[in-house]
Amino acid sequence: MGPHPAVAAIRLAVRRVLTDILDDHGRIPGPPTHERPPSPLVLVACSGGADSMALASALAFEAPRLGVRAGGVTVDHGLQAGSDLRAADVVTRLRELGLDPAESVAVTVGRDGGPEAAARDARYAALDAAAERHGAAAVLLGHTRDDQAETVLLGLARGSGIRSLSGMAAVSGADGRYRRPFLQVDRQTARTACMAQSLPVWDDPHNADPAYTRSRLRHEGLPALEKALGKGVVEALARTAQLSRDDADALDAWAGRAEAGVRDADGRLECAALHDLPPAVRRRVLRRAAIEAGAPAGSLFARHIEEVDRLITGWRGQGAINLPGRVVARRQGGRLVIRQG
Amino acid sequence: MGPHPAVAAIRLAVRRVLTDILDDHGRIPGPPTHERPPSPLVLVACSGGADSMALASALAFEAPRLGVRAGGVTVDHGLQAGSDLRAADVVTRLRELGLDPAESVAVTVGRDGGPEAAARDARYAALDAAAERHGAAAVLLGHTRDDQAETVLLGLARGSGIRSLSGMAAVSGADGRYRRPFLQVDRQTARTACMAQSLPVWDDPHNADPAYTRSRLRHEGLPALEKALGKGVVEALARTAQLSRDDADALDAWAGRAEAGVRDADGRLECAALHDLPPAVRRRVLRRAAIEAGAPAGSLFARHIEEVDRLITGWRGQGAINLPGRVVARRQGGRLVIRQG
Repeated sequence: MGPHPAVAAIRLAVRRVLTDILDDHGRIPGPPTHERPPSPLVLVACSGGADSMALASALAFEAPRLGVRAGGVTVDHGLQAGSDLRAADVVTRLRELGLDPAESVAVTVGRDGGPEAAARDARYAALDAAAERHGAAAVLLGHTRDDQAETVLLGLARGSGIRSLSGMAAVSGADGRYRRPFLQVDRQTARTACMAQSLPVWDDPHNADPAYTRSRLRHEGLPALEKALGKGVVEALARTAQLSRDDADALDAWAGRAEAGVRDADGRLECAALHDLPPAVRRRVLRRAAIEAGAPAGSLFARHIEEVDRLITGWRGQGAINLPGRVVARRQGGRLVIRQG
Repeated sequence: MGPHPAVAAIRLAVRRVLTDILDDHGRIPGPPTHERPPSPLVLVACSGGADSMALASALAFEAPRLGVRAGGVTVDHGLQAGSDLRAADVVTRLRELGLDPAESVAVTVGRDGGPEAAARDARYAALDAAAERHGAAAVLLGHTRDDQAETVLLGLARGSGIRSLSGMAAVSGADGRYRRPFLQVDRQTARTACMAQSLPVWDDPHNADPAYTRSRLRHEGLPALEKALGKGVVEALARTAQLSRDDADALDAWAGRAEAGVRDADGRLECAALHDLPPAVRRRVLRRAAIEAGAPAGSLFARHIEEVDRLITGWRGQGAINLPGRVVARRQGGRLVIRQG
């Protein structure tokens, strides 16, 4: 008798990603032999919750069959009393699954960008450091299709275009270090796989705390949307992420090529040439130019770029446009000048 | 003392669109004189609800100042008892605003594509016919920013990419006949403008009927999303629509140009050339080819195109792919053949 379907699903998802990782390292999947160089190490980032415990269990099962060493890291954010004890408990579970190394890393969460962003920044810094320390080929993250759907909705709420709709990448970070095998796996499958394997899981109280935007979205926003639009919403949002990512990549590439064609011999942007570009490409060229001039990408919103764009498409002698980072855009004699100060 | 701010807002929105319409007809805005040719006629489509009554009132106010004749049409869908009486009542109100012609058109709503789509098809056919009959330069529609946000969410639920996120166009139909002056005006402003002008409005019971997807979205889905993500959601969705539309237009144009470059001397699609295109452009080329071969655009989903795409990017000898409209895609000797039968 084969494994439970949910267990089979999470193992397949991890197997595919491990095969990709071996491929990227020029290795043929297979158990280690004396002739082969040391196996690459793959770490799983594990909170002890159902998603990442399911991921850890699938990694522990698949890695030895493919000639991969498997380890695990849990991050102690220090945000709740007893979080150190819980982290130690997660390490024990990772060891019981056969992961080695299995370790807990304590971080100090700052305040920059709000509680969720600060915790995320601290977590990734710790995971980066752990990957470097152990010479890991990759770090697996347990984000599911439901997390992806939530991320798309959070991006939608920014209203800043299709890049913010593209959610989380399956491969990201320096040298593609981070991999998300579960982006096509739903949260319920991960939970079921844990139950089928009798794995104890821990529910992070933050995940149900209505002070967190993502938690409100998960427990109220998305269910209401599913009630109105049908059960396929999560899948549709996840597919939107992939399509938007490819579209945004293609348009960024176009803007990169177009930029050279709209600069004069001195490298200044020519308004007439900008005017002839499709609006989608022109706005991206303007955004690149503003960032190059020193505007912080995270503070540069669609409305800023729209205002700069009106210097090209709606010119009626308007004055300079102030952008974040003390960057100023003005039209001067048929040229668009974007610079700091 | 000027008009109420809500009234000023709806008038400004209509004035901008009327100026555009005059511009497109090569006319200078201004009251009619003996030397000028007959004024163009602009019709408003009016259900008697707050949005379109506000629109009718703003048209009645602005049109004479700009040298435009203003008329109104209400469509009697015949879906409720007494709908004919209500339509006659709307005509009376349009006349009281000074609109001429003001008429009601009765339609028979079919069943194709569900109740909402069938009613919409019948309505636009009647509006097209009325515009032709009266030689109207344009028909104004009362869709607000809230309607736009709902349309984006409905598109999101299809998960078929950024074209379906682009909502309703400000200008659409044959020769840009349909104009939507209120896409940047919120529903509450339209309601307030009606109250400020003591205009009676009629609430379509369909708008609150949970049997309708849009109604569920309006009364449950969007409010829950606003609660989770903040009040800016409607504005963010409307901005997403505009950005997505421009992006989709640019990528469609790119795909149109790319298509010529991936066909051999006999017009067949070359797999190697397709492989070199960015995924976003390749998928659009494949979609165009499938539609050209006879696949109905409305039945061709993202998953169909993904499957055809795997003949290019994941070739492992797979068989023919069946597409809607009895269209078949297969790979033959380095060429992709998409045809009916």
